[in-house]
Amino acid sequence: MRVGILGATGYTGQELVRLLSNHAAAEIIYLGSSSMAGKSYAGIFPQFSSEAAVELQDETVPDGVDVLFCALPHGITAARAGNYLARGIKVIDLGADFRLHRPEVYEKWYKVKHPAPELLPEAVYGLPELHRNGINGKSLVANPGCYPTATLLALVPLLRAGLLQEDSLIVDAKSGVSGAGRGASLGTHFSEVNENFKPYGVAEHRHTPEIEQELSEAAGRELVVSFTPHLVPMIRGILVTIYAGIKEGVDEDDLRAAWQESYRDEVFVHVLPEGVWPQTKFASGGNHAFLQLMVDRRTGRAVIAAAIDNLVKGASGQAIQNMNILFGLPEDLGLKGRGMWP
Amino acid sequence: MRVGILGATGYTGQELVRLLSNHAAAEIIYLGSSSMAGKSYAGIFPQFSSEAAVELQDETVPDGVDVLFCALPHGITAARAGNYLARGIKVIDLGADFRLHRPEVYEKWYKVKHPAPELLPEAVYGLPELHRNGINGKSLVANPGCYPTATLLALVPLLRAGLLQEDSLIVDAKSGVSGAGRGASLGTHFSEVNENFKPYGVAEHRHTPEIEQELSEAAGRELVVSFTPHLVPMIRGILVTIYAGIKEGVDEDDLRAAWQESYRDEVFVHVLPEGVWPQTKFASGGNHAFLQLMVDRRTGRAVIAAAIDNLVKGASGQAIQNMNILFGLPEDLGLKGRGMWP
Amino acid sequence: MRVGILGATGYTGQELVRLLSNHAAAEIIYLGSSSMAGKSYAGIFPQFSSEAAVELQDETVPDGVDVLFCALPHGITAARAGNYLARGIKVIDLGADFRLHRPEVYEKWYKVKHPAPELLPEAVYGLPELHRNGINGKSLVANPGCYPTATLLALVPLLRAGLLQEDSLIVDAKSGVSGAGRGASLGTHFSEVNENFKPYGVAEHRHTPEIEQELSEAAGRELVVSFTPHLVPMIRGILVTIYAGIKEGVDEDDLRAAWQESYRDEVFVHVLPEGVWPQTKFASGGNHAFLQLMVDRRTGRAVIAAAIDNLVKGASGQAIQNMNILFGLPEDLGLKGRGMWP
Amino acid sequence: MRVGILGATGYTGQELVRLLSNHAAAEIIYLGSSSMAGKSYAGIFPQFSSEAAVELQDETVPDGVDVLFCALPHGITAARAGNYLARGIKVIDLGADFRLHRPEVYEKWYKVKHPAPELLPEAVYGLPELHRNGINGKSLVANPGCYPTATLLALVPLLRAGLLQEDSLIVDAKSGVSGAGRGASLGTHFSEVNENFKPYGVAEHRHTPEIEQELSEAAGRELVVSFTPHLVPMIRGILVTIYAGIKEGVDEDDLRAAWQESYRDEVFVHVLPEGVWPQTKFASGGNHAFLQLMVDRRTGRAVIAAAIDNLVKGASGQAIQNMNILFGLPEDLGLKGRGMWP
Repeated sequence: MRVGILGATGYTGQELVRLLSNHAAAEIIYLGSSSMAGKSYAGIFPQFSSEAAVELQDETVPDGVDVLFCALPHGITAARAGNYLARGIKVIDLGADFRLHRPEVYEKWYKVKHPAPELLPEAVYGLPELHRNGINGKSLVANPGCYPTATLLALVPLLRAGLLQEDSLIVDAKSGVSGAGRGASLGTHFSEVNENFKPYGVAEHRHTPEIEQELSEAAGRELVVSFTPHLVPMIRGILVTIYAGIKEGVDEDDLRAAWQESYRDEVFVHVLPEGVWPQTKFASGGNHAFLQLMVDRRTGRAVIAAAIDNLVKGASGQAIQNMNILFGLPEDLGLKGRGMWP
Repeated sequence: MRVGILGATGYTGQELVRLLSNHAAAEIIYLGSSSMAGKSYAGIFPQFSSEAAVELQDETVPDGVDVLFCALPHGITAARAGNYLARGIKVIDLGADFRLHRPEVYEKWYKVKHPAPELLPEAVYGLPELHRNGINGKSLVANPGCYPTATLLALVPLLRAGLLQEDSLIVDAKSGVSGAGRGASLGTHFSEVNENFKPYGVAEHRHTPEIEQELSEAAGRELVVSFTPHLVPMIRGILVTIYAGIKEGVDEDDLRAAWQESYRDEVFVHVLPEGVWPQTKFASGGNHAFLQLMVDRRTGRAVIAAAIDNLVKGASGQAIQNMNILFGLPEDLGLKGRGMWP
Repeated sequence: MRVGILGATGYTGQELVRLLSNHAAAEIIYLGSSSMAGKSYAGIFPQFSSEAAVELQDETVPDGVDVLFCALPHGITAARAGNYLARGIKVIDLGADFRLHRPEVYEKWYKVKHPAPELLPEAVYGLPELHRNGINGKSLVANPGCYPTATLLALVPLLRAGLLQEDSLIVDAKSGVSGAGRGASLGTHFSEVNENFKPYGVAEHRHTPEIEQELSEAAGRELVVSFTPHLVPMIRGILVTIYAGIKEGVDEDDLRAAWQESYRDEVFVHVLPEGVWPQTKFASGGNHAFLQLMVDRRTGRAVIAAAIDNLVKGASGQAIQNMNILFGLPEDLGLKGRGMWP
Repeated sequence: MRVGILGATGYTGQELVRLLSNHAAAEIIYLGSSSMAGKSYAGIFPQFSSEAAVELQDETVPDGVDVLFCALPHGITAARAGNYLARGIKVIDLGADFRLHRPEVYEKWYKVKHPAPELLPEAVYGLPELHRNGINGKSLVANPGCYPTATLLALVPLLRAGLLQEDSLIVDAKSGVSGAGRGASLGTHFSEVNENFKPYGVAEHRHTPEIEQELSEAAGRELVVSFTPHLVPMIRGILVTIYAGIKEGVDEDDLRAAWQESYRDEVFVHVLPEGVWPQTKFASGGNHAFLQLMVDRRTGRAVIAAAIDNLVKGASGQAIQNMNILFGLPEDLGLKGRGMWP
């Protein structure tokens, strides 16, 4: 498999290079960058030295690429994807362009017209544990956002099983700073971020409609969620804490059973033993997700938590997982690495 | 005013020394420590060098102390407070012994019998912005917990005004590691905590009944809350994110007006301009609290946030604020320091 | 004393505001900013809220200012200082323009022509513990750099006493990220800096000639030093580790005695008890410096360490100390705050 | 290859498990722990879940182990190694017991009698890039310390080539906190370590004689070094900054050429392009070392820097590299992972 990466110098691009350099069936033949074409990848990122001998090129994707990872700002991939697909290149988009099924929702939250609404029906929302069958045989995969990945892994099985009150869902989410990407700004300046904790994008984060789309589909009815992201003074990791009313007669065992049934055969999703709560560090550098829940008898609510590495299961690792599925490979090929501790 | 501090070597003890060393009307004449009696305070904590010339003594409180800050594990202060009070010493307890009005609640959450239930009626819950009049003239102040301080400042005015659905309250709380004190453990080991984020004490944290007691009083009826604390890889700071259903006909302006009315004349509580959300660093090292809220029209819920420094407004600073009230001094004497940024 | 600050929105500007807001004899009447004129200071920096009611103005310094702190990029203050001085305003420059006595040295290291070489003889290098008498009565103070402050406090007394081999001096310096200021860049981006440690500016950092000028003066002969700064993943603090050959017949007691003699009456410089090595946190937020040394018998070298807060004793605190001297005030007025721990 | 690990729950033990779980030719069949025998490894360390299905046993090494990694406190491995060797088990000691050739040096620095001096001649100092031939065919490998690994990779080629003044060497070393292991103490308590930087063990760190032994061997004469370790508020990474006088007539190109010659064919040692200085994050999670140097013409000294991940190239990765050599496998088998960035 000959792999190309657009946006190769961003964090998800770098993470693709790191993970793919240990992938037995993939060879990177193209690294594209709008700003650093002509430079040696290893020259910019010394950690890769020799094996990433590929030189950065401009964003013209060469022939011979079997699968193209697009790690670009929203709007750009959609404008070009048709061309790639026509050339027989499978496209895995790490951006937001093909995640939302309805262009009007995209336009409402992203404030731009969708550049290629005609491609939306061809795209699949690539969360393998929840949509595996839909991914197989597709050529255009919308790789999920980081917050949605954690949230959906926690909630979809419970909603599919009809265990939760659909109007009660509150997702209090916390992310490391790498989620903001490699662009420097006052908001990601070390001296402003370290020893600090804050909410941001309250009630207006763009992952909200993505979460709602998938949860509504799982619930079989339209629903909305309260979603509040926060910035944690750490580089990697997402933890979502979810509060949910449970339906009459439902207890903790029912919830846990729904998870077990969904994830029994999954290699990347781990329902932790009772009482062990997820920590983001469990997942650091690995493509794994960790789940826990309890029902608080005093309040009658379920408290649910999920942790992932935002750059791996929340982005580049999941993208490779999708690639493996597209090409009929074992799903964890190149993704066996475990979280790095400490 | 001659001040004594029991538990002078813990973090809240150190913070009392730091803040009191700039207090024009207070002189530290006694520093007690069970484990380090006989040592020089400045020898253990070089940052204090000369001005903390007081030598650490054992926990026998000497005569001449006008006010005693007790920064001790729960259970100990209650057993001794009667004696101090009988000697005419005013007691400000930074621990939990006198925060809960009902001894059976204390015993349920702290798993020990309350050592001095007869003193509970004499104690006042020392959150000045909400109970100022009750503090004046008292001799025994229960200094609030850090999480309750942030939560109550945010919610009490709204509940008193009858604006929130009392059964809908969810408090998702995040704290820096200093809240765990100076005792070393695997759970506060740098390599386990840094680059990590996790919930802890889910549905069983001891600040829950304290929050519920005060919120119930404000609401005029018993209520329970979902309260989930999380550990942030930073030293200082607490931020609580609160989700609340609002009553029919209530809008964002009503909520904001209730805050404005409560805090218009307060020097330590700041309702931020619309759209500016609290960050823990605003408060770092200072005795200030920062509040913001919005009503999310899509979900109909209010999202509310409050930030404080857990060791200052959440502990030692508030204790000094209480001392100032007890002695009829300006409430911000010795507490004018602003948050340190960056 | 009516105080003005140019560059009020940078980190040293903010730190001046924080410290001066507790200064009994100083009132801020002017805050200048090239980019944010017209905005409310408290609106940009909510931690200051009410007391910093002064609105940001452009960089035209109004009449009535007695003393002006210039926290500007190098080159700018020099071009304007003559005007301020002519108007009777005392100038304390936190930048580099007046630190180097010889304009050709300035031009070599800063790569620009000095805008006002004629003012250099009027300026005093404002390290009070080493040049106190020279500061008194001056109108133009060059506030020392952060690295030089730590280095000079450690070395000047030893060189003045003729105890060290002048050609042996190696200064391995480590700084928190706030030293790079408030401007966002990839080099100060949280995800690049956290969990990372690196040298920078090896053998070319602009504080080198400043250190050498002062050490040469202390030694009574020209000398050069190896100076290597490093970036520590923390916000505040500088620690310098210095290696020095000692002269024949000199032992550890001689070195220590030279320090004791120099600093016996200093309120801000602390020679730690034997075996207690400086930590940057001792100084965090305070205007204090902490020193330690030992002679390693195996190698015959002295190992010397000094720690300060780069934004306080290394910048804004020292600037206020200089102001106090200029106006005949107690040197620690407004600077009594102790390091914040933890 | 059937692998056993003693001390499997410490950080180097965990790192061995992480790295070996992706090693094509090694199977972990035994995990020993003095304190947690009987527990499931994945139960304690959820990041490993399924693949580390091995249960923790006591420290009795079972039959069938081909190679045993000993990650134990010093003194213990030496007392047991003879027994393991007699049973035909190859031993790789991550502790200090077999690093120093002369038992009297061990006893001087470790303050205990060496338990098995008769085994010292059988041990090889396992720094493959410098002693590869000596490792082949051995059964007892002393895996180097973390500081020595970085220091020796930087200095040995230069000393072997006779380019440095042997009495001039100063090693200013900086380490992340994980080097202190998993044991909780005040010195590794998050609130004491974060936002702090300090030297420790000045002139008495136990890696000093190890460095001196190897440098003396390379130089062909006894030499001593100034070695000062510092604690950086980060988890992983070591950077050493070295100052060295150069011999008459030597220039920067000579030094660089000596490195190039030594490391041209090494997969794990990278001499960075001129002007690019090592950062610890280049190495994070990978078994790679990064080097840079320059000659400062003003002082005539070389400034040299090397960075590694203390837990990988500085411990467990290098141990696996040694295992690969012992068993005739490709040296980078299981070690192809690149540093994780960000």
